Amino acid sequence: MNLSRDKNILIVGLGLLGGSYAMALSRKDYRVRAIGKSQEGIDYALERGFIERGTTTVTEDFVAWADVVVFGLYPHIFKEWIAAYQQYFKPGTIITDVTGIKGDFVRDIQGMLREDVEYIPAHPMCGKEVSGVQNADDKIFTGANYIVTPTEKNSKEAVELCRDLGWILGCYRVVEMDIDKHDEIIGFVSQLTHCIAITLMTCNEKEHLEKYTGDSFRDLTRIARINDEMWSELFIDNKAALLEQMKEFREQFEKLETMIETEDVAAMRALMQRSTQRRKLFDK
Amino acid sequence: MNLSRDKNILIVGLGLLGGSYAMALSRKDYRVRAIGKSQEGIDYALERGFIERGTTTVTEDFVAWADVVVFGLYPHIFKEWIAAYQQYFKPGTIITDVTGIKGDFVRDIQGMLREDVEYIPAHPMCGKEVSGVQNADDKIFTGANYIVTPTEKNSKEAVELCRDLGWILGCYRVVEMDIDKHDEIIGFVSQLTHCIAITLMTCNEKEHLEKYTGDSFRDLTRIARINDEMWSELFIDNKAALLEQMKEFREQFEKLETMIETEDVAAMRALMQRSTQRRKLFDK
Repeated sequence: MNLSRDKNILIVGLGLLGGSYAMALSRKDYRVRAIGKSQEGIDYALERGFIERGTTTVTEDFVAWADVVVFGLYPHIFKEWIAAYQQYFKPGTIITDVTGIKGDFVRDIQGMLREDVEYIPAHPMCGKEVSGVQNADDKIFTGANYIVTPTEKNSKEAVELCRDLGWILGCYRVVEMDIDKHDEIIGFVSQLTHCIAITLMTCNEKEHLEKYTGDSFRDLTRIARINDEMWSELFIDNKAALLEQMKEFREQFEKLETMIETEDVAAMRALMQRSTQRRKLFDK
Repeated sequence: MNLSRDKNILIVGLGLLGGSYAMALSRKDYRVRAIGKSQEGIDYALERGFIERGTTTVTEDFVAWADVVVFGLYPHIFKEWIAAYQQYFKPGTIITDVTGIKGDFVRDIQGMLREDVEYIPAHPMCGKEVSGVQNADDKIFTGANYIVTPTEKNSKEAVELCRDLGWILGCYRVVEMDIDKHDEIIGFVSQLTHCIAITLMTCNEKEHLEKYTGDSFRDLTRIARINDEMWSELFIDNKAALLEQMKEFREQFEKLETMIETEDVAAMRALMQRSTQRRKLFDK
C-alpha cells in the first residue's frame, strides 16, 4: 500500500467533496488536516472528528506538514493557490484533486509546479445536489467510479498512491484514463447530462406541472439543482468536448423527431431496443 | 365512498399495471377478477390471491359480473376489445383505464360505447421498466399522482368513483384535467423524458462507458429500458403534442449550446439558478 497510515494528508478546500474525503479518511484512521475558507466549516469538521487540525489561513507550517495534499477547490482557484503558495510544499509532496475536468487544466498545473512536487490528477464520479462540508458524506463513494488520469510527468509510485486513495475512499472501481479522452467522456456522461437536465427543467414554464409528474421526470431533473458557479466554470473549461457531445445528442434527438413525424414505427422500435440493450450495461 | 366493497371489479389486461391494480385492490378486500392473455399470468395472480377468478377467454358471464371494469390494454387493443365485446357489459357498468394518452383516443371510445355504459378515463403516473403481472407491485402507487380526465359525457358519480379508485390504490394526489391539456402535459413530463433518455443512451456508442459513469447518467437513462411496442404506439397516438414539446426542448437546448459557445457565463448562471429554483417544486 503506497498510501500507508504514516502519510500526513492535508485537504485544501473543505467543501462537500473535501469534507467527504476528510470524513472517509479519518474514519479509516488516517491523519487528516484541512485548510478551508470559513471557520464554521473547520469547526464543523473538527467537532465531528473529520480532521485533527484545521485553519483558514495558508501557512508554511500547515502545508509543509503534509505528505499528500488533496485539492477540493474550483479549477481557477486551485490554479491561483498553486501560484501563490507552492513554495510551502516540502520536497516530495504528492498532490491530487477532485476536479472534474482535466486536459489543458492538468497541463497548466503540471507546467507551473515545482520539479520536486508531483501532481497526479484524479476525481471520483460522485457528488450531491448540495454543497458545503455540512453536507459531507462518505457514503457518496460507495459504488462510485474513481478516475485517475496520469500524464508522462507522473511516476508509477504516485499513480499507485492515487489508486490506493480511490479504494480507501470506498470507490467501487478505479480506472485510469488519458487526460484528453477523460474530457471527452466526462463531456458525455456528466456534463451533457447536466445540460439536458437544466434544459428540461426550464423549457416549459407551465404552472403546477409538479402535480402531474411521475418519477421519470423527477429522475431526469434531479441534477437540475445545480451549483451554477461551479458548473458554468466546468462547462467553459471543457467547452470543445462538451459542445461536440451536445451536437451528437441533438442530431440523434432530431432523428427521433423525424421518426415520430413520419410514424416510422420500425425505426423507433429498433432504436428503443438498442437503448434497452445498452442500458443494461449500466446497472450498478 | 362511491367505490364501495360491494362493487365487483374486473381487470381486463393482466400486465404490470393491471396486475398491480389487482394486487392493491384485493389486499384492500375488494372482489377482483381478471381477463388476461396467458394462463400463466392468470395462475400467477390466482396463486398470490390478487384475483378470485380469472380467464383467458372473454365470456358474457365474466364481463356481466362486473360493476367496474379497469382496462390495462395497449390503446389499439382496448379499442378493438370494446368493438368486439361491449355487448357483454351489464347496463350501468363503469369502465376506466390506465392508458397514458387521452385526447382523440377518449373521444373514439366514448363515441363508440353503448349509451348505458360509462367510460371515465384515468391513469396513474407510475410504472416500471419491466412488464408482466410477474412484476406487479402495489408499491408503485405510493406517492404517485393519479390523473382523471372527465369529459362532458361523464357523470359526477363516475368521476367520484374513479377518484376513489386513485385513493384506494394508494396514490398521493388525485387531479382532474381536460383531455387535451392532459396530452400536452403528458407529452412533456412523460413522453419527452423517454425520448431524451433513449436519445442519450444511443447517441454515443463508445465501448465501456459504464466504467466511467456516475449516478447522473444512470438517473437520466433509467427509463431508456423501454417497452418498444407500447411506447412507439403511445408516441404516435400523441404525435402532435409530443412533437411540440420536443421542439421546445430542442430550441432551449440550442440556446444553452450558444451560451457555452460564446462563454456567456451570466446567462448560463441565470439559467441554472432558474432550473435549481424550479426543481425544488418537484420533490415528493
